[in-house]
Amino acid sequence: MNYIAAAIAVLGAAIGAGYGNGRVISQTLESMARQPEIAGQLRSTMFIGVALVEAVPILGIVIAFILVLM
Amino acid sequence: MNYIAAAIAVLGAAIGAGYGNGRVISQTLESMARQPEIAGQLRSTMFIGVALVEAVPILGIVIAFILVLM
Amino acid sequence: MNYIAAAIAVLGAAIGAGYGNGRVISQTLESMARQPEIAGQLRSTMFIGVALVEAVPILGIVIAFILVLM
Amino acid sequence: MNYIAAAIAVLGAAIGAGYGNGRVISQTLESMARQPEIAGQLRSTMFIGVALVEAVPILGIVIAFILVLM
Amino acid sequence: MNYIAAAIAVLGAAIGAGYGNGRVISQTLESMARQPEIAGQLRSTMFIGVALVEAVPILGIVIAFILVLM
Amino acid sequence: MNYIAAAIAVLGAAIGAGYGNGRVISQTLESMARQPEIAGQLRSTMFIGVALVEAVPILGIVIAFILVLM
Amino acid sequence: MNYIAAAIAVLGAAIGAGYGNGRVISQTLESMARQPEIAGQLRSTMFIGVALVEAVPILGIVIAFILVLM
Amino acid sequence: MNYIAAAIAVLGAAIGAGYGNGRVISQTLESMARQPEIAGQLRSTMFIGVALVEAVPILGIVIAFILVLM
Amino acid sequence: MNYIAAAIAVLGAAIGAGYGNGRVISQTLESMARQPEIAGQLRSTMFIGVALVEAVPILGIVIAFILVLM
Amino acid sequence: MNYIAAAIAVLGAAIGAGYGNGRVISQTLESMARQPEIAGQLRSTMFIGVALVEAVPILGIVIAFILVLM
Amino acid sequence: MNYIAAAIAVLGAAIGAGYGNGRVISQTLESMARQPEIAGQLRSTMFIGVALVEAVPILGIVIAFILVLM
Amino acid sequence: MNYIAAAIAVLGAAIGAGYGNGRVISQTLESMARQPEIAGQLRSTMFIGVALVEAVPILGIVIAFILVLM
Amino acid sequence: MNYIAAAIAVLGAAIGAGYGNGRVISQTLESMARQPEIAGQLRSTMFIGVALVEAVPILGIVIAFILVLM
Amino acid sequence: MNYIAAAIAVLGAAIGAGYGNGRVISQTLESMARQPEIAGQLRSTMFIGVALVEAVPILGIVIAFILVLM
Repeated sequence: MNYIAAAIAVLGAAIGAGYGNGRVISQTLESMARQPEIAGQLRSTMFIGVALVEAVPILGIVIAFILVLM
Repeated sequence: MNYIAAAIAVLGAAIGAGYGNGRVISQTLESMARQPEIAGQLRSTMFIGVALVEAVPILGIVIAFILVLM
Repeated sequence: MNYIAAAIAVLGAAIGAGYGNGRVISQTLESMARQPEIAGQLRSTMFIGVALVEAVPILGIVIAFILVLM
Repeated sequence: MNYIAAAIAVLGAAIGAGYGNGRVISQTLESMARQPEIAGQLRSTMFIGVALVEAVPILGIVIAFILVLM
Repeated sequence: MNYIAAAIAVLGAAIGAGYGNGRVISQTLESMARQPEIAGQLRSTMFIGVALVEAVPILGIVIAFILVLM
Repeated sequence: MNYIAAAIAVLGAAIGAGYGNGRVISQTLESMARQPEIAGQLRSTMFIGVALVEAVPILGIVIAFILVLM
Repeated sequence: MNYIAAAIAVLGAAIGAGYGNGRVISQTLESMARQPEIAGQLRSTMFIGVALVEAVPILGIVIAFILVLM
Repeated sequence: MNYIAAAIAVLGAAIGAGYGNGRVISQTLESMARQPEIAGQLRSTMFIGVALVEAVPILGIVIAFILVLM
Repeated sequence: MNYIAAAIAVLGAAIGAGYGNGRVISQTLESMARQPEIAGQLRSTMFIGVALVEAVPILGIVIAFILVLM
Repeated sequence: MNYIAAAIAVLGAAIGAGYGNGRVISQTLESMARQPEIAGQLRSTMFIGVALVEAVPILGIVIAFILVLM
Repeated sequence: MNYIAAAIAVLGAAIGAGYGNGRVISQTLESMARQPEIAGQLRSTMFIGVALVEAVPILGIVIAFILVLM
Repeated sequence: MNYIAAAIAVLGAAIGAGYGNGRVISQTLESMARQPEIAGQLRSTMFIGVALVEAVPILGIVIAFILVLM
Repeated sequence: MNYIAAAIAVLGAAIGAGYGNGRVISQTLESMARQPEIAGQLRSTMFIGVALVEAVPILGIVIAFILVLM
Repeated sequence: MNYIAAAIAVLGAAIGAGYGNGRVISQTLESMARQPEIAGQLRSTMFIGVALVEAVPILGIVIAFILVLM
């Protein structure tokens, strides 16, 4: 039963992170093409944003590892 | 049974946080490209916004940890 | 059984809060980029709005805590 | 069984309130950026609107509390 | 069994009312920003509209209360 | 079993009425902002339209009441 | 079992009628705002259209009544 | 079992007819507002179109009646 | 069991025919309003198109009749 | 069991054919209104296209007939 | 059991082929209306494209025939 | 059981290939209409693209054949 | 049981790869039509992108083969 | 049971990675066509972005391998 639970947690984490990161990074690339002179500033904001987006999914992956290896 | 419950909570938290954060941060990047002179103000608003968005999902993760380790 | 119930409540609360907050805060950022001179007024409205949006999800989280710790 | 019922009611209330409030408040912010001179009037309409939107979800939360604590 | 039924009725009522009211009120705010001189007329139409939208969900909430307290 | 049936009927009626009424009334408000001089004509058409939209959901609510009180 | 069947028929009828009527009437209101001089012609077409849209859902409601009262 | 089958047939017929008719009639109204001088021609095409759209749902309703009254 | 099968076939046929016909006929009406001088040609193409769209759903209805009356 | 299988095959065939044909034919009508002078060429392409679209659903209907009459 | 499997395979093949072919052919018709002088080239590309799109669904239909006639 | 598994694999392969190929080929046709002078280059890229898109679905079909004939 | 698991893995891999590849390659074709002079650079980026997109689905196919042949 | 869990994890990982990568890479290609002079900078950002997007799905694949080979 805990294997299924780990799989559902992975499912949610992967979809959440894929959607959030895909949106943040693609927007960074679009903004860089529109304003190339602030590319550095955009990229540093992107790193902070990706870290913030991945906080919850990484915790979900941790829970999945606990469930699998328990 | 509580493992499945933890997984469902992680699923909701990850998708909710991924959607909300992805939207907030990508909008910040778009606005920074449109108005580079208020980039600092936008980024500080982004930090407050991300903290507000993640309040409920982090509580959900806490509930999931309680359910897993109980 | 009440663990599953808590998880469903967390799922609804996280998705509802993530959608609502993400929309409110991203709109605030867009409006700030369009009208930087009323940024303070927009941000204060954002705080009121986020508080109003999170009222129901926080109540749902409270119900989930009652169900988990009961 | 009534715990699951409370959770479904919370799910509906949180998603309904999150969608409705998110739409109302984000529209208020957009309109304030377009017409800053009637910001007060828009914000007072927003308060009435949020109260009207939250009427049904709050009743749902009340039903959930009755089901949980019964 | 009637608790689950009450929860499904609350779910439908909250989502229906949240969608309908959110749409009506956000449109009122947009129209007020476009035509501020007929704001009063728009707001009075909004009150009638919200009352009409909430007629069916409130009846659903009444059915839910009957089911819960029966 | 008839309680669940009543709840499903309420669910359909509330969502159908919420969608239909929300669309009709929000369109009325938009049209009033675009053509304020025919506001009365639009509002009278809105009342007829809302009555026509609510015919089927109200019948559904009647069926739900029959099922609950039977 | 026939109560559930009646509820499913009501669900379909209410959603079908709500969608169809909401679309027809909101389009009528939009067209009236664009061409106020043919408002009467549009409204008479609307009445025919609503009657045609509601033909199938009303038959569904009739089937639901047969199932409930049988 | 045949009651449930009749209800599923009604569900499909009502949604199919509501979508198809709603689209046809609302398009007729939009076209009448754009080209008022061919309103008669559009309306006669609309009647043919609605008859063609409703052919399959009416057959579905007939099947539902056969299942209910059998 | 074959009653349920007939109902599922009706469901698919009604939704498929409603979507396809609704799209074909509404496009015909839009094109007639844009190019009134080729209305006859458009309408004859519409009749061929509707016949082609309804070929598969009518076969599905035939299968449903076979299943119901068998 | 094979009746249900036939119904699922009909469901897929009707929805697939309805979507594909509806899109092809409505696009033909739109193109004919934009370029009336190549209407014949468009219509002959439409016939080929509809035949290609319906190849797979017709095979699905054949499978459904085999399953029903077997 | 293999009848249900054949039906699911038909469902997937019909929807996949209907979507893919509908998109390819409708785009061909739109491009022909925009650039009538390369209609032949577009149509030959369309035949290659449709053949490539239908490769996988036809294999699915073959699997369904194997399952039905086995 | 492996028949159902083969059918699910066919379902995924057909939908994935239909969506991917439909998008690639329709985009090729649109680009050819916009830039007819590089039609050859676009078509050669299309062949490479379709081959890359179909790699995974063809492997899925292979797995389905293994499951059916095993 | 592992046959079903392999089928679900194939389903996910085919849909994920079909969506991702379809988007990447169609965007390449659109960009090539807009900027034909950097077609080589775009195509080389496309090959890298497709390889990156297919990394995870190919691993999923490997897992499916392990499950089928085990 | 752990085979199914591995398959669900693969499903989530493949869809999440396919969506995220497809969005990032297609945006890179679009931006390269709009601003060819910063193509190198965009491509290096793309590599970082793809690595960040694939972090969570690769962890999911690792969990799936653990579940399959355990």
